[in-house]
Amino acid sequence: MTKKALILIADGTEEMEFTITYDTLVRAGVSVTSAYVPAENDTNTGYTSPPFAKGSRGINILPDTYFSPQDATPDKFDLLVIPGGAKGAETISSSSPVQHLVRRYLEEGKFVGMVCAGSLAALTAGLARRPLTSHPSVKGKLEKDFEYSEEPVVVSGTLVTSRGPGTTFPFAFTLVELLLGKEKRAEVVGPMVFPANTFA
Amino acid sequence: MTKKALILIADGTEEMEFTITYDTLVRAGVSVTSAYVPAENDTNTGYTSPPFAKGSRGINILPDTYFSPQDATPDKFDLLVIPGGAKGAETISSSSPVQHLVRRYLEEGKFVGMVCAGSLAALTAGLARRPLTSHPSVKGKLEKDFEYSEEPVVVSGTLVTSRGPGTTFPFAFTLVELLLGKEKRAEVVGPMVFPANTFA
Repeated sequence: MTKKALILIADGTEEMEFTITYDTLVRAGVSVTSAYVPAENDTNTGYTSPPFAKGSRGINILPDTYFSPQDATPDKFDLLVIPGGAKGAETISSSSPVQHLVRRYLEEGKFVGMVCAGSLAALTAGLARRPLTSHPSVKGKLEKDFEYSEEPVVVSGTLVTSRGPGTTFPFAFTLVELLLGKEKRAEVVGPMVFPANTFA
Repeated sequence: MTKKALILIADGTEEMEFTITYDTLVRAGVSVTSAYVPAENDTNTGYTSPPFAKGSRGINILPDTYFSPQDATPDKFDLLVIPGGAKGAETISSSSPVQHLVRRYLEEGKFVGMVCAGSLAALTAGLARRPLTSHPSVKGKLEKDFEYSEEPVVVSGTLVTSRGPGTTFPFAFTLVELLLGKEKRAEVVGPMVFPANTFA
């Protein structure tokens, strides 16, 4: 049975975090869908065909679809991913349908991945205190309500959090391993040709 | 004086290699332009507004512009980058205007970066024998004509080559250092939050 992942994207999403996660999951055989979350003041809200998302460093990415809460439920996907990038993470984490989905995914034992400022969604979704990491720039907002860690990737039940572009490869490999096992992880890492001892 | 980089993109370009290089250069303050190189049988050839490039793992990226040889000359940019992804690298490296530009950039002391299968452009451009690396999958096509290395990043004069998605961060950091110095490299690496001892 093919595993399915939904990756959210917004204007200001960190394009490396988005791309590394999406591409790595596809390499593992996961069926990946990206869904555009409009900002609250986005005049395009309601379009059925998504506009492009303008990444945090100016790369324009065409999402696969427009975010629609009823098409994003945990019966349809095994994994929900929230990438970082300050403005993108703010848009995504402040969406109440996204907050609701984060809670439902975790309640139903499905995986939720958050990287960088994307970890703010753990706070806005009102998750119970648990181990978590994030980009250092948002540590101050999270350390009171969570067991804040500085590990590159933190797995807490089915919540997987990570720190930034520099930890997104191990974040994505951890998601592959949780969904499909250690062998699949090794199969995906090999052809990417990491320098010796990197992410080993 | 702001440094300028031109990154080529085609259908089948490896989207992590493209995105990591583009984003890292932007973080360093480089003015980056992506230019879409159409495949020879691309019915869109001649459009003045580029279509999106379909990445090797299905991420659709909107290039900044359409590749035009007269707008890509070494007087306009400090760096020309050719990313990998089998199909994308084939399209880009088989373009005779690209081959001509690769030679001109190197003759004029400007930087050329090639990563993964993008290193095939060294062969198609007819570059003289020199140290070089590439993705292992195209080693067989390159090892007779070049001093083939398995180092993550190989700098040979102003030609910088690298191996795959797993070496694209150090590839991009090397380009930043060559264009802007060691301090700028460190300034860019820090906020990306790599795990300890990674790409140090």
